[in-house]
Amino acid sequence: MIKAGIIGATGYAGAELVRLLTAHKDVEICWYGSRSYIDQKYAAVYQNMFQIVEDVCKSDDLEQLAEEVDVIFTATPQGYLASILNEGILSKAKVIDISADYRIKDVEVYEQWYGIEHKSAQFIPEAVYGLCEINREKIKGARLIANPGCYPTCSTLSIYPLVKEGLIDPSTIIIDAKSGTSGAGRGAKVDNLYCEVNENIKAYGVAGHRHTPEIEEQLSYAAGEPVMINFTPHLVPMNRGILVTAYASLKKEVSYEEVRAAYDKYYENEKFVRVLDKDVCPQTKWVEGSNYVDVNFKIDPRTKRVIMMGAMDNLVKGAAGQAMQNMNLLFGLPESEGLDLVPMFP
Amino acid sequence: MIKAGIIGATGYAGAELVRLLTAHKDVEICWYGSRSYIDQKYAAVYQNMFQIVEDVCKSDDLEQLAEEVDVIFTATPQGYLASILNEGILSKAKVIDISADYRIKDVEVYEQWYGIEHKSAQFIPEAVYGLCEINREKIKGARLIANPGCYPTCSTLSIYPLVKEGLIDPSTIIIDAKSGTSGAGRGAKVDNLYCEVNENIKAYGVAGHRHTPEIEEQLSYAAGEPVMINFTPHLVPMNRGILVTAYASLKKEVSYEEVRAAYDKYYENEKFVRVLDKDVCPQTKWVEGSNYVDVNFKIDPRTKRVIMMGAMDNLVKGAAGQAMQNMNLLFGLPESEGLDLVPMFP
Amino acid sequence: MIKAGIIGATGYAGAELVRLLTAHKDVEICWYGSRSYIDQKYAAVYQNMFQIVEDVCKSDDLEQLAEEVDVIFTATPQGYLASILNEGILSKAKVIDISADYRIKDVEVYEQWYGIEHKSAQFIPEAVYGLCEINREKIKGARLIANPGCYPTCSTLSIYPLVKEGLIDPSTIIIDAKSGTSGAGRGAKVDNLYCEVNENIKAYGVAGHRHTPEIEEQLSYAAGEPVMINFTPHLVPMNRGILVTAYASLKKEVSYEEVRAAYDKYYENEKFVRVLDKDVCPQTKWVEGSNYVDVNFKIDPRTKRVIMMGAMDNLVKGAAGQAMQNMNLLFGLPESEGLDLVPMFP
Amino acid sequence: MIKAGIIGATGYAGAELVRLLTAHKDVEICWYGSRSYIDQKYAAVYQNMFQIVEDVCKSDDLEQLAEEVDVIFTATPQGYLASILNEGILSKAKVIDISADYRIKDVEVYEQWYGIEHKSAQFIPEAVYGLCEINREKIKGARLIANPGCYPTCSTLSIYPLVKEGLIDPSTIIIDAKSGTSGAGRGAKVDNLYCEVNENIKAYGVAGHRHTPEIEEQLSYAAGEPVMINFTPHLVPMNRGILVTAYASLKKEVSYEEVRAAYDKYYENEKFVRVLDKDVCPQTKWVEGSNYVDVNFKIDPRTKRVIMMGAMDNLVKGAAGQAMQNMNLLFGLPESEGLDLVPMFP
Repeated sequence: MIKAGIIGATGYAGAELVRLLTAHKDVEICWYGSRSYIDQKYAAVYQNMFQIVEDVCKSDDLEQLAEEVDVIFTATPQGYLASILNEGILSKAKVIDISADYRIKDVEVYEQWYGIEHKSAQFIPEAVYGLCEINREKIKGARLIANPGCYPTCSTLSIYPLVKEGLIDPSTIIIDAKSGTSGAGRGAKVDNLYCEVNENIKAYGVAGHRHTPEIEEQLSYAAGEPVMINFTPHLVPMNRGILVTAYASLKKEVSYEEVRAAYDKYYENEKFVRVLDKDVCPQTKWVEGSNYVDVNFKIDPRTKRVIMMGAMDNLVKGAAGQAMQNMNLLFGLPESEGLDLVPMFP
Repeated sequence: MIKAGIIGATGYAGAELVRLLTAHKDVEICWYGSRSYIDQKYAAVYQNMFQIVEDVCKSDDLEQLAEEVDVIFTATPQGYLASILNEGILSKAKVIDISADYRIKDVEVYEQWYGIEHKSAQFIPEAVYGLCEINREKIKGARLIANPGCYPTCSTLSIYPLVKEGLIDPSTIIIDAKSGTSGAGRGAKVDNLYCEVNENIKAYGVAGHRHTPEIEEQLSYAAGEPVMINFTPHLVPMNRGILVTAYASLKKEVSYEEVRAAYDKYYENEKFVRVLDKDVCPQTKWVEGSNYVDVNFKIDPRTKRVIMMGAMDNLVKGAAGQAMQNMNLLFGLPESEGLDLVPMFP
Repeated sequence: MIKAGIIGATGYAGAELVRLLTAHKDVEICWYGSRSYIDQKYAAVYQNMFQIVEDVCKSDDLEQLAEEVDVIFTATPQGYLASILNEGILSKAKVIDISADYRIKDVEVYEQWYGIEHKSAQFIPEAVYGLCEINREKIKGARLIANPGCYPTCSTLSIYPLVKEGLIDPSTIIIDAKSGTSGAGRGAKVDNLYCEVNENIKAYGVAGHRHTPEIEEQLSYAAGEPVMINFTPHLVPMNRGILVTAYASLKKEVSYEEVRAAYDKYYENEKFVRVLDKDVCPQTKWVEGSNYVDVNFKIDPRTKRVIMMGAMDNLVKGAAGQAMQNMNLLFGLPESEGLDLVPMFP
Repeated sequence: MIKAGIIGATGYAGAELVRLLTAHKDVEICWYGSRSYIDQKYAAVYQNMFQIVEDVCKSDDLEQLAEEVDVIFTATPQGYLASILNEGILSKAKVIDISADYRIKDVEVYEQWYGIEHKSAQFIPEAVYGLCEINREKIKGARLIANPGCYPTCSTLSIYPLVKEGLIDPSTIIIDAKSGTSGAGRGAKVDNLYCEVNENIKAYGVAGHRHTPEIEEQLSYAAGEPVMINFTPHLVPMNRGILVTAYASLKKEVSYEEVRAAYDKYYENEKFVRVLDKDVCPQTKWVEGSNYVDVNFKIDPRTKRVIMMGAMDNLVKGAAGQAMQNMNLLFGLPESEGLDLVPMFP
């Protein structure tokens, strides 16, 4: 049994991790870290876990935790892990960081977009960006996984093949993304109250959202050159789900089959990326509760652009599911162990 | 492997059965019956099953189906199964009927409330009402299971211990129930359009809903005398979930502990009925996607009444999950096989 | 022009009052009181009012306010108005209190249910309970109006005629109510976050909700004897709307026409109470944004009970609309001035 | 009093027209045309109008209607009005067509995108595109108004000033739009059922939506050259509201003030277009129920693009409200008569 600890177990991403790890046959959760609910029963905070989880919440003492578990998941505010991570911890337990602290290789870019100083930049080089479908081999040997952001996961997987294959001009990429409200976290803010979100839609973080440089970095690797994009997230009145609609100019006239072949080249054997049939648009509801990303595209011959689409559950493939997928890779388990989740509809 | 066939596989209950059976390690679905989508790929109707189910939809030829499978699930309109069931079918395959055709023992009551003639009343006596927590032993040997209705499952389980133990006056029972919209089915009706249901709540079937006699029959068995209730269902703007709030007069002054003991007597060892801690009210979201029914109660010493509450996923414990629980019992499998579903929150 | 001031203008009830008063041709809002947003532009807090309201938020200095306006609306936390109201204020301006401070005549009952000491009980006797359809004449001459609570408004109007006419046994009244989330206010609490409310329904305040004694008091006046009820509110995933489903035993066998006549006796000439046609159940969406209460009933001859139903917009007839209706009465304006609001559907 | 008739009065746009015209002091609705509900009480179809509208639904006999009213609103399926309009009708009554039949000047473009033959192309030249803020003067003298589509209204108004002022390269315009479900109409289709839309978001009509050429035509007039765009609509789980997020490359480096000045040049005196304060993103909830379009923009100096945003109620400014605004212009009334609608929040 793999012993797992979670820091930030009472946020939405942490709670989803609890849901998934609880059902994983090779894992035992030994530490439910939650500074806000310390010594309270976890199931009193998340009543869905009543009679399933009997533990109480513990502190976020990472040092102690590293002594007791094989893998640590951190679903913590930006900068927190960076401020306390050290060699001792990393030498004792694998760390899968669901925050953004080690996702961006250029520390200056991180500090500029996040507006905080990075306290342990020395670990950035060894951290592996845990987008399993792209970095599978590197992940296997890592000590520290930077679990990708929700928007970057869906955006990158939707666009990657066409950038990699040189079919689109990377300088023309525009990503218009839509997310369910769980992405905003469980903090008590007026903006996230039911009555403010329901029957409403808005863009936010326009031209300034922190996931922008993360997506740019990944697409730059694919393109082999620096890529700059526009990324606009929107808040949608639903609990879960991210939909990405991305636009780019085609470098040359291409057929449906050529573009399709590019997607198939990278995803044909990927269990968790489903390239939908022609003309079927991804819908978030079709992947809810599962680790799938559904992708598809449409060529517009009039404007010589391609519209790329992706749908995903932000809490699963966009957070906890991918984290567990990374854990499976780290510990030599079948990659989809515990992730054979059939999407729930309706 | 148990070979299973579903008639009505493209309704919401049928689709949920597909979701659950697909993840059941001892079952293989051999027949996706759907008259409306015959010869179409099942996954084209329910895109969540893309790359999970490769089959096409078949007819509703029950005779043929009985030749090919071990168990038949019927998620069909009222009266349909009654009109075609025969001894030959029952002698070849177990039948678990998710419709109401064999739930009510008194055929006159059935015909009166459903407004149709029962075409095979001869099978009513042998049909076992598949409320597993109450009728477990009888279910095991049955050929024909009448899978309980969604409202009756939640209502009966919420009230049963207090009736059985004689703590409440059965003639005072009032059940006010609230259901998500999936309970209304997938038929294209104006009343179930998004814009008609969203931001809206209404009662329907007031003093005339067909689940009334079904609940009354079950409570009558518990009371040992005929019970007549008021039952009012409401349509709530959510996909899944049933919440029951029931009221009854206490026969005598009782303490919290006494009432609690009555619930514990029947549910302490029941995996799927969770009696919540004192003063915690059930919420449908806490059981979503799972086979749990969460129940609790509150004594009102002022009015000498008790308020009984239950929450459940109408498509799981209220339909497909309970059907699979019945199947497990019929085939000698562990009762919770395939039903260790952790509720999804949020 | 009537000069109006609002204390608590940035809560949901206060904001609805702004929406309605802004469109009232005889009223000018002179004071947008909001302790939390003092000196900020009101339209920056409620962007729907952009270019409609140019004022900034002011303090809650009731003394000063009384000097400047003709009528003061208080949409404040329980106990606040009671703690600062005095003769000087009441002698200068009419006060319409949307909080509960003066609704209950028996100060002990108030203190028991609200758990706070009443600081100005001397004004309770003169306060008029502003349920316009019942207390119209008394309202006209009042200085201090206790604007009814949302649940009590809908509950009382749904039940009143049958209690008053002696058709039902008051000791059997059970009220099961369902409310949209705006009723919970705009405070930033985890329980009211979008993801906690959406796809969810729960009961709350079971056997202990503060609106219970308020409803009981009003029904007692109608019955001519003390009435004790069960009242259970539920939180529904929608912004606006209250639906009441109430149950009571009939005192004798009655026909539809007899019960209908009782409703017509009290509401035939009431613009804002619509008694629906036979068998049409009230729906909250049909009254959204308007001052209507839609009521109807269904007799159950089996159980000899009647089910009474009412639907209302909790922020309009349940708060701001009724407050403005009271204002119209206080100032001798046509009662429906500014309240000819056509419900918005969908 | 202006006598008005509506063909298609029981669709969502028609019903909104009823809501607005009912509250218009100079209009009397004389004809509620609805082929599906002929001879039924209008208020039985839309219970929100109970005791407000007493009329029954009539046929869609346009000839007869033209004899009886001053203005005809047609909220009818594409091609219907074109198939029956004639000189006699136009000579007797003004026609405001909410369908798309006369919006596109090039009949070949219309026939290609709508896939139907235009049966009365002779009236296209005289039809005036009723986007009041742009075509105000032309509208005043027209007999036939082509009321703009919902997406085109919001898209055009959001982008127009920057195209007109030559600040952006029209060939780079990409419009990503999100709509509430009422835009899909009241037809009973599985795709629009509550359970299919709720907790879901999808793109549809990708690279092929019929509003594309309508937007292109309007932007071409502004640009003075043919403009080709990408337009992708999305279905959002809410009843009302359209949000447009549009992208374009800036022709040169510009400051916030320069772009702002372009918006102000066209909208400073426009009551119904609100240019929001810097960095405030439009939200659909802030305009719900009103005739406002809220617009704003954000310059991205990194990519040298500008993101333009607009929010609107699709049934008001996107359909019925604009139709009534056109009617006011046609009949010499104040343009905002009956349209002083304060947005409802929450």
